[in-house]
Amino acid sequence: MASESDTQQRILDAARELIHSRSYADVGIAAICDKAGVQKGSFYHFFPSKRDLTLAVLDDFVVWAKQGLVDRAFDPQLPPLARLQRLTELAYEIQKQLAAETGMVLGCPFGNLATEMATQDEAIRHKIAHIFDKFQATFAALLQEAKGRGDLGGIDCEATAHAMLAYFEGVMMLAKTQNDPEVLRQLLPTMTQIRIPAKH
Amino acid sequence: MASESDTQQRILDAARELIHSRSYADVGIAAICDKAGVQKGSFYHFFPSKRDLTLAVLDDFVVWAKQGLVDRAFDPQLPPLARLQRLTELAYEIQKQLAAETGMVLGCPFGNLATEMATQDEAIRHKIAHIFDKFQATFAALLQEAKGRGDLGGIDCEATAHAMLAYFEGVMMLAKTQNDPEVLRQLLPTMTQIRIPAKH
Repeated sequence: MASESDTQQRILDAARELIHSRSYADVGIAAICDKAGVQKGSFYHFFPSKRDLTLAVLDDFVVWAKQGLVDRAFDPQLPPLARLQRLTELAYEIQKQLAAETGMVLGCPFGNLATEMATQDEAIRHKIAHIFDKFQATFAALLQEAKGRGDLGGIDCEATAHAMLAYFEGVMMLAKTQNDPEVLRQLLPTMTQIRIPAKH
Repeated sequence: MASESDTQQRILDAARELIHSRSYADVGIAAICDKAGVQKGSFYHFFPSKRDLTLAVLDDFVVWAKQGLVDRAFDPQLPPLARLQRLTELAYEIQKQLAAETGMVLGCPFGNLATEMATQDEAIRHKIAHIFDKFQATFAALLQEAKGRGDLGGIDCEATAHAMLAYFEGVMMLAKTQNDPEVLRQLLPTMTQIRIPAKH
């Protein structure tokens, strides 16, 4: 018999996959239960609502992005800017793999949920804003390290990290709109060229 | 008595406003009819479905973006790169105004609909991909003009226009997620610094 935590994780896994490949609104609790192989009563035992489930799914997406992208790219043996470059290559490989499996470029789950839900659900918007802040801080720390090595001029690390994250999300959006993972290969590496100078 | 075209335009205006401030899925035909002050029968007289209406709404958004952004920014008296800079300033002003009216940064209607719908509706995805292609071509023509004047080095105008559009959309997405129009003021001008060199 499946343990409680197995059941909960099955619901989360099903929701993560369905929401990433469709949208928040398009994925109902019935479809999630169906895919997870659980009863509706069991769903409500773990999650009071689809919104609560989505907030938990966002935590799982953070783990997915951290393990699949950040931890693999941020090899301390590599110079800081080469780590960023590696991150863009991994993002392309992951999206290409997902597109091969589903027939569609799925894009960034955080960006997808943010654009769909930001004006409708403050809890979801707030959570994704916080997740973006964390990614920005990760980029900024790396830029600070590069700056310390003299690899960068007098840039504003925070603003540049913010701009790089914006560019990353925008390229994801265009690749999804064109349904072409090659857009990521062509455009993402330019992310590492973005610089916002420090104010004097 | 309202003419047929008045009624149709009222439906389009109501849908444009509702979809921009919420999402495709969240806006029902009943809400659109209610806001437009028309009967459901009248709606179906003009539009067989919400998808057909949305395709028509996208045409109206193109007119809105062209008149509000491109036509105002692309003053032939200005040098090409100054026109791009002006476009980023206008985008900030428009979003700031919408945020003052609604309490929310609404973001780019094309980007919003693309991220929500691209994996679910091929007609909507395809239409927005085509609209993005046109914006990219507008940017590329301007970059070509700047290149001809010697304002730019040996850049790939098409790829740079593509990257600029991605950055523009990504900044819109982050501003919406943070619900802060100042993100646009801080980040958008960097769009004009993006360069992708021509391949040799």
